[in-house]
Amino acid sequence: MLDRATYIGGFDGVSSLVGAETIGKEPMGTMPHSLVICLGNQAKAWKAFDEIMPSNVPRVALVDTYFDEKAEALMAVEALRGKLAGIRLDTPGSRKGNLPEIVREIRWELDIRGHRGVKIFVSGGVNDKNIKELCEAGADGFGVGTSITNAPTIDFAMDLVEVEGKPVAKRGKLGGKKGVWKCEQCFTYSVTPAASRVPRCMRCGKSMRRILRPLIKRGALVAKLPKPEEIRKSVLSQLERVEEI
Amino acid sequence: MLDRATYIGGFDGVSSLVGAETIGKEPMGTMPHSLVICLGNQAKAWKAFDEIMPSNVPRVALVDTYFDEKAEALMAVEALRGKLAGIRLDTPGSRKGNLPEIVREIRWELDIRGHRGVKIFVSGGVNDKNIKELCEAGADGFGVGTSITNAPTIDFAMDLVEVEGKPVAKRGKLGGKKGVWKCEQCFTYSVTPAASRVPRCMRCGKSMRRILRPLIKRGALVAKLPKPEEIRKSVLSQLERVEEI
Amino acid sequence: MLDRATYIGGFDGVSSLVGAETIGKEPMGTMPHSLVICLGNQAKAWKAFDEIMPSNVPRVALVDTYFDEKAEALMAVEALRGKLAGIRLDTPGSRKGNLPEIVREIRWELDIRGHRGVKIFVSGGVNDKNIKELCEAGADGFGVGTSITNAPTIDFAMDLVEVEGKPVAKRGKLGGKKGVWKCEQCFTYSVTPAASRVPRCMRCGKSMRRILRPLIKRGALVAKLPKPEEIRKSVLSQLERVEEI
Amino acid sequence: MLDRATYIGGFDGVSSLVGAETIGKEPMGTMPHSLVICLGNQAKAWKAFDEIMPSNVPRVALVDTYFDEKAEALMAVEALRGKLAGIRLDTPGSRKGNLPEIVREIRWELDIRGHRGVKIFVSGGVNDKNIKELCEAGADGFGVGTSITNAPTIDFAMDLVEVEGKPVAKRGKLGGKKGVWKCEQCFTYSVTPAASRVPRCMRCGKSMRRILRPLIKRGALVAKLPKPEEIRKSVLSQLERVEEI
Amino acid sequence: MLDRATYIGGFDGVSSLVGAETIGKEPMGTMPHSLVICLGNQAKAWKAFDEIMPSNVPRVALVDTYFDEKAEALMAVEALRGKLAGIRLDTPGSRKGNLPEIVREIRWELDIRGHRGVKIFVSGGVNDKNIKELCEAGADGFGVGTSITNAPTIDFAMDLVEVEGKPVAKRGKLGGKKGVWKCEQCFTYSVTPAASRVPRCMRCGKSMRRILRPLIKRGALVAKLPKPEEIRKSVLSQLERVEEI
Amino acid sequence: MLDRATYIGGFDGVSSLVGAETIGKEPMGTMPHSLVICLGNQAKAWKAFDEIMPSNVPRVALVDTYFDEKAEALMAVEALRGKLAGIRLDTPGSRKGNLPEIVREIRWELDIRGHRGVKIFVSGGVNDKNIKELCEAGADGFGVGTSITNAPTIDFAMDLVEVEGKPVAKRGKLGGKKGVWKCEQCFTYSVTPAASRVPRCMRCGKSMRRILRPLIKRGALVAKLPKPEEIRKSVLSQLERVEEI
Repeated sequence: MLDRATYIGGFDGVSSLVGAETIGKEPMGTMPHSLVICLGNQAKAWKAFDEIMPSNVPRVALVDTYFDEKAEALMAVEALRGKLAGIRLDTPGSRKGNLPEIVREIRWELDIRGHRGVKIFVSGGVNDKNIKELCEAGADGFGVGTSITNAPTIDFAMDLVEVEGKPVAKRGKLGGKKGVWKCEQCFTYSVTPAASRVPRCMRCGKSMRRILRPLIKRGALVAKLPKPEEIRKSVLSQLERVEEI
Repeated sequence: MLDRATYIGGFDGVSSLVGAETIGKEPMGTMPHSLVICLGNQAKAWKAFDEIMPSNVPRVALVDTYFDEKAEALMAVEALRGKLAGIRLDTPGSRKGNLPEIVREIRWELDIRGHRGVKIFVSGGVNDKNIKELCEAGADGFGVGTSITNAPTIDFAMDLVEVEGKPVAKRGKLGGKKGVWKCEQCFTYSVTPAASRVPRCMRCGKSMRRILRPLIKRGALVAKLPKPEEIRKSVLSQLERVEEI
Repeated sequence: MLDRATYIGGFDGVSSLVGAETIGKEPMGTMPHSLVICLGNQAKAWKAFDEIMPSNVPRVALVDTYFDEKAEALMAVEALRGKLAGIRLDTPGSRKGNLPEIVREIRWELDIRGHRGVKIFVSGGVNDKNIKELCEAGADGFGVGTSITNAPTIDFAMDLVEVEGKPVAKRGKLGGKKGVWKCEQCFTYSVTPAASRVPRCMRCGKSMRRILRPLIKRGALVAKLPKPEEIRKSVLSQLERVEEI
Repeated sequence: MLDRATYIGGFDGVSSLVGAETIGKEPMGTMPHSLVICLGNQAKAWKAFDEIMPSNVPRVALVDTYFDEKAEALMAVEALRGKLAGIRLDTPGSRKGNLPEIVREIRWELDIRGHRGVKIFVSGGVNDKNIKELCEAGADGFGVGTSITNAPTIDFAMDLVEVEGKPVAKRGKLGGKKGVWKCEQCFTYSVTPAASRVPRCMRCGKSMRRILRPLIKRGALVAKLPKPEEIRKSVLSQLERVEEI
Repeated sequence: MLDRATYIGGFDGVSSLVGAETIGKEPMGTMPHSLVICLGNQAKAWKAFDEIMPSNVPRVALVDTYFDEKAEALMAVEALRGKLAGIRLDTPGSRKGNLPEIVREIRWELDIRGHRGVKIFVSGGVNDKNIKELCEAGADGFGVGTSITNAPTIDFAMDLVEVEGKPVAKRGKLGGKKGVWKCEQCFTYSVTPAASRVPRCMRCGKSMRRILRPLIKRGALVAKLPKPEEIRKSVLSQLERVEEI
Repeated sequence: MLDRATYIGGFDGVSSLVGAETIGKEPMGTMPHSLVICLGNQAKAWKAFDEIMPSNVPRVALVDTYFDEKAEALMAVEALRGKLAGIRLDTPGSRKGNLPEIVREIRWELDIRGHRGVKIFVSGGVNDKNIKELCEAGADGFGVGTSITNAPTIDFAMDLVEVEGKPVAKRGKLGGKKGVWKCEQCFTYSVTPAASRVPRCMRCGKSMRRILRPLIKRGALVAKLPKPEEIRKSVLSQLERVEEI
């Protein structure tokens, strides 16, 4: 359920087997710390990964197991040479300090040695507050877990608001059947009595569009549900037009 | 999953059919606003409920649909007389004002008329911050939803810390197999190298008890799992001994 | 004294008999809760009020005595039909919750039933901080008490600043007779030595006007004092030109 | 009205003529800055005051008109010698700096010269927040104006709560006639239904005393009202027993 | 060392003998409180100063020793007449109150008596937070001590970043020899690898200038150091072009 | 000057040559990052240090140059074996994360391998706010720079307070010669007029001791000044008796 929601919301992929199956995609991911620890040596682990994995899997080296991120990043460049596609920082909390600064520093060291094509991925503690600063520092991609599974619950309730054509409602609820409208231009929503005429968007003046559609009637599904991929496309196309606030 | 967790954590019951089945209990709950709205009249709804429900179901009247909570509470007393077991306040946010004050006022009005046995239940927006004040004001029970489903995710991770008897660990993790200990007296936890001798509790000086137990071996369950009811009992017996901080 | 000040400051009327006499106007107001409580029934009270009051008094029903404001508002519409001029919310503090939300909800319920002409009045706890939000939610008028009587005292003192043409002053006071000027354009004030030439307004550049005028000479009133109504008019005409900040 | 309230509340006296008349006492006060300014010289003003005022008026010199408070305090000691009863600081806001520090410094300078009997009075901006620190610094008395006239309004309302022996009340009010009780031991108040038996004080366990007494019956005063002096005595005797919080 | 730094940073002069010598200027300053106290009388002190000091030293009277600043300022005007160049306020902390208000008041009193040419100097507790408000109130000059000597230490460290042409660096430091650039137009700084081509200023687009220059080679000074006066001129010429933020 | 003050204040030693000379002690310190960088390899650097330094210098390895602190700490243990006296963390700001957590983790790793005698030193950004937490985490010693050199300036001034036996003082200063007293028991200070009798300590009741002593008379030193070491001893002996607040 969580994996499907993140994919719909714009993530490029998911790492759990069952989640990937739900959205009809291949699972994605990089090597774990346990690979490095089992082999007891970073370079050995990166080379083993390179040897065994199918060639379409990008070579992304995990570079924070034993030494400093910068030291391991330069070791990975040395070990895999032109085959290195990227590095992943999964820096533990106690070493996190100024993570954007570390990303910026590694970007500098890679660039000064001519490895502009090696990407930097960050995982561990990434959330909606710190991701912008990490992007600006040069991070190319992210692995996100806790902050997504911990997203706040959205409260909703089922209420009777009309009985046999007459508005009814308990205190605190607006009575009568509603029309829900959306402005396709600026994504503003509006709620009116159901019988209202098409309203104009209060923000940009455009005609709004009714968006309530029956999905279930007398217990049976009456609409075709879009695939996760389709929903995701629709989300992404809207995101492009959202202004930064 | 949520229903099971709340039950284990000390709740008396759950209202969803599938949740109740999971914990092996009857589902619990009171009448919805839609019953009142369908019948169009509070007293009619309460009487219908009383007429039709099995006699072992307590008569708890929902008293905030159309009028003020106090007015409806007195109407419910009038309508069901001695059969009224309690009332439920599900006050919407826009009327919530000082909810403990409302509870206190209804308690006064019930008592001054001799209905000391009628209980007061509160639902809607109850959480770990406001429940104490509601108890002090005289509320006898609670229906809780959002604040429980919205409980913060607890971060955890699988780490290799020992390989063939030697401590290994990535940066930021303590290496080597661990012993985890609990003080049965004051519920303090302690983590030591696995081979340590039984430690004394740092807080109360008692001998501590090892609490790690294998549950799965080579993919097979090797321990008997307790029923939700047993876990709940264990939680409640410990809660009794937790000091208020 | 308080009633006169509120009237001068722009209020439409006052409710106390002695205050109304002071400003030479009829006292204004709506029915009290005690009318509803004495008759023991809201509809009975509203109808009694309608039966007995002179026809030039608008029918404003108090709608928060026993039930929820929305329920009583719809009952009042039912009881007085086309004669209902407005409703008054005097919601007690313990139920206030989100009062603008309640106003918005009642406006919706009245409108959806075709009673767009019924006005909404709010009293109880209205002050300079919350009145704007209540207006935006649809409130048409207000009854204000405590927040006006509790307005902060304005400090002032009598000081000698000139003796026989020579500037004198204690520490912390500017010496010498002063000229006080006002810009009729933008209401900026300015203080200068009395003998200064007419200054230009620092804000808009217009010539300013001297505003000090002798009212008492040797103990006798030497100026005609304006009536409260005239002062009020002057206040209101200036308010129209004050920009919102 | 204000003067009467301050006197009842424990002030030693008031300075306005009409206020003093209301409480049946002589008005009290010290010399104004305008006396010093009219005579153009502090010492001349203090001596003139000493020459002309009846001998039962204490000689309190105002010491902040032109120079620093310390300089003028020593000048006053010099000018009136043994007749000086005290000095008054009415320091303007722009010089106030650390007023307790100034009081402490003047106390030091007076003491080091042997004038331990000369009292220090402070007026101007004294309020319930800064008075404690001024006392600790050595101030002996205070003149208070604005902070008393600006005391917050206490909200109250008249409500019907019982009709012909039956509890009635609007929402937000407790129904039924009340008994109001006070503990003579620790000044705790308690409200109960009128018919309740004498309650025990929740704080100290003593029997409480009923304190509601009819003052007006059918429009006529039926009780003897105490004089301001008597009320004040009662307030002061209770203050003595109030613990500091 | 401190005196040199303040002079370089734009101060007009310093008061200590050794500091003045360091920067090759005459020491500057005004009379101390001890002069007034030794002579026991302000006017006597100001006149003695006027009598004895060389005629090129401006007559600035210290006006806060015994009386209020305003009183002493007017006394100084009286005592030195046309010879008075300015007054100095060194108000002690316990009287500081609203110092800008005092400056404004003295400016008013001097002006109303025709002494527009008498300057106002302020010393004691002047810092980068309050100096702006004092300027706006009419202060013409300042004596600053503590807030300058208390300026925060600037952290710096020596790091190896290149060994025999190869970038090296510890974690947290950028490797390789650097070029440091400054935009002469808008004073923006930029750091690049040493071999980079001349960068354009990111803020205004101008070509930047290299600013690293060898000062010491093999232990010997190889550059001519500018005199304090030259550095100061350069600082001041740049300050003129710094925009206020 | 700074080195002398830190030594007097309780530090064990200083690292600058000139500072050490001032206090008459050998300079102290550990290896710099440039040693590791010049040799290009941590183990090589630690071994070179061990080979060349006199045997009375403790072997403290700097362990944060290239890799993670934990990895380098274990490498140092390996490289110097029983000769390793301690390790130093000088973690750069961008990696600092939770520094106490890192100290705790290294302590665990050293202990689990039997190196309980290897000490942990911390330098870089240590100050009076974070040092307590680092101690609790297991740090044995500290190198402190910036936070000491940046200590706030203490304001003081020279004032005339008595002239020929008569108290004089400007506003804001206490007049007359003073006696300054100290309680040897609880380190409370007290200031009285010089002629006062021996006061009792306000805090603990003991007799106080006069502490003003002439150091210079007519320009000549008349007292023997204690050596830094003696002052330091006196400071330390008092610190032992200061209660934690």
